[in-house]
Amino acid sequence: MMSFKDLVKANRSYRRFFEEHTISEETLLTFVDYARITPSGTNKQALRYYIACEKELNGQIFETLVWAAYLSDWQGPIEGERPAAYVVLIQDKEYTMATTADAGIAAQTILLGATELGLGGCTFGNIDRDKLKKILKLADNFEILLVIALGRPKETVVIVEIEPADDIKYWRDENQIHHVPKRKLKDIILSPI
Amino acid sequence: MMSFKDLVKANRSYRRFFEEHTISEETLLTFVDYARITPSGTNKQALRYYIACEKELNGQIFETLVWAAYLSDWQGPIEGERPAAYVVLIQDKEYTMATTADAGIAAQTILLGATELGLGGCTFGNIDRDKLKKILKLADNFEILLVIALGRPKETVVIVEIEPADDIKYWRDENQIHHVPKRKLKDIILSPI
Repeated sequence: MMSFKDLVKANRSYRRFFEEHTISEETLLTFVDYARITPSGTNKQALRYYIACEKELNGQIFETLVWAAYLSDWQGPIEGERPAAYVVLIQDKEYTMATTADAGIAAQTILLGATELGLGGCTFGNIDRDKLKKILKLADNFEILLVIALGRPKETVVIVEIEPADDIKYWRDENQIHHVPKRKLKDIILSPI
Repeated sequence: MMSFKDLVKANRSYRRFFEEHTISEETLLTFVDYARITPSGTNKQALRYYIACEKELNGQIFETLVWAAYLSDWQGPIEGERPAAYVVLIQDKEYTMATTADAGIAAQTILLGATELGLGGCTFGNIDRDKLKKILKLADNFEILLVIALGRPKETVVIVEIEPADDIKYWRDENQIHHVPKRKLKDIILSPI
């Protein structure tokens, strides 16, 4: 496979997809199996997963997500460009999570696994959790943490380096290329280097 | 490089190292540069990093970490088996983090990058934060989130699959092999499969 550096670079947040490119349940389970063996704070393993790759359920999940907060004139992908699958990250509250880092560890692992296969996606924290919990028929002890939308990306995302005082809002140019401002390495290192 | 699956499998939590195998500042900066371009909730990029690979500072950081909560008769690695480097994940509180997942995303990315090079490590949430903040001379707006210890692993870690009711505590056998119980895939999937 590609170097880890190239994998990390290729793993952008994608929000438009070739919806006709389906993702199988088997593939989704492969990604969750990666997350399963990641480090977990004090090994509590409180995370649970709900996977979806069927058209009707996908449509229901789609309606619970808030898309791209900074693109105020865009309401999310049109039909045909929507995610082909979802992985919902859930905490079983019967098990205490030692750190809140667990969900991020799992999410990044799933997305890097998807990237290796030429897929991509976007992690949502802004979710209508009550509505989604009803759709997925989750028992009371389950709390929705994050939703990962997945598909074959149908957009180009580029990173632009910014100065400390610059705006961090992402934006799309006239060619629909998505630009993501990222701070420079020297601006995020606090140790003397 | 190896497949992503093999990379994730090789990325265990290691707590004993060949301390004489040093890790350069340049290598640590490479790992932070991977974390720099990872997805960040609403792209806030509130994470900052302090890197350490020098003996005296390493020793000071070591003293602020609580090692392996479940190994009650083990106080952490002896001299010569301690980490060769650290990456401290810090939040700049002048920037709101959109989700607590950011630190986990960064930590997992750094550890997978280290794994690619035959290194390994362990992420700490149980830290004497006040003490470490003084050691690193961090300003008031900086909050320590996680510490990642890194080195060339000097121990064998194996995963064992468990039933839902089994104990999740990791343990070491008489040959000092570290066993980590992980739930089975079917036990962490909530969707009908």
